[in-house]
Amino acid sequence: MKRDDPFVSDHATLKLWLRLLSCSTQMESEIRRRLRKRFGISLGRFDYLAALHRHPHGLKMSELSRHLRVTGGNVTGLTDDLERDGMVVRESNPTDRRAWMLKLTARGRRTFETMAREHEQWVLELFGGLDDHALGELYAHLGVLRTHLKPDTEESR
Amino acid sequence: MKRDDPFVSDHATLKLWLRLLSCSTQMESEIRRRLRKRFGISLGRFDYLAALHRHPHGLKMSELSRHLRVTGGNVTGLTDDLERDGMVVRESNPTDRRAWMLKLTARGRRTFETMAREHEQWVLELFGGLDDHALGELYAHLGVLRTHLKPDTEESR
Repeated sequence: MKRDDPFVSDHATLKLWLRLLSCSTQMESEIRRRLRKRFGISLGRFDYLAALHRHPHGLKMSELSRHLRVTGGNVTGLTDDLERDGMVVRESNPTDRRAWMLKLTARGRRTFETMAREHEQWVLELFGGLDDHALGELYAHLGVLRTHLKPDTEESR
Repeated sequence: MKRDDPFVSDHATLKLWLRLLSCSTQMESEIRRRLRKRFGISLGRFDYLAALHRHPHGLKMSELSRHLRVTGGNVTGLTDDLERDGMVVRESNPTDRRAWMLKLTARGRRTFETMAREHEQWVLELFGGLDDHALGELYAHLGVLRTHLKPDTEESR
């Protein structure tokens, strides 16, 4: 920790953290607002569909919960809603008869893909103030940050 | 939107957004865990004290709510708790007799400053994988991102 450095003095790293949190919170709330307005869908529901879309062979409910970091209760409630809307099916699991596999229906897949294309345009637009060089640097630095965060948070649990 | 560019093809900006969100979420949950473990305090309570610390002349409850972006109900509950613990006082407001001014007590200020020093060390440690040059670039790029986000989110509300 170089306390004499002009960057770390004057609480610069603390300001960086508040700026990172503020960008992330603002983007998330803007995306949440647009999903609601454009598709009448919650962010939780969108993330649920996104996780199943990334796993075309299906996920157990416990696996899906881990992907979404929400409580099992939320996943159960979302599953009931999405099954009723014909977006998701529960299929019997050949390797574990007690656990259902959750999969997107053809309709769920189509619906998600339509939303995902628009969602990606929003993300491009929200990052539109940065040129490609800056986007690449941001991506690289956040990669280093994430790698540094992972072992710390795991060993300290 | 340069769709042919190698960076924006292959969903690179979408991956950047997921990485930004993941870093922010992981850091927040690690800081929340440490505040709980080290000081037995919630992140909401820490943020409440931080906001009053930045405003030594006090804040009205409505102003504090805006700073914290939590519901009025939460601020009322936190105020009751922190007043009972001798950290915060409600003072009558000379310019508006119906609204109380919330201020830190000397004890609240001392307690917060002790926690804030340690909190800042955690932030330095969590960003410790990045050198000062990278920290500076990250800060600058997030500044551009935030400036770009602000008008969009405000005009679209």
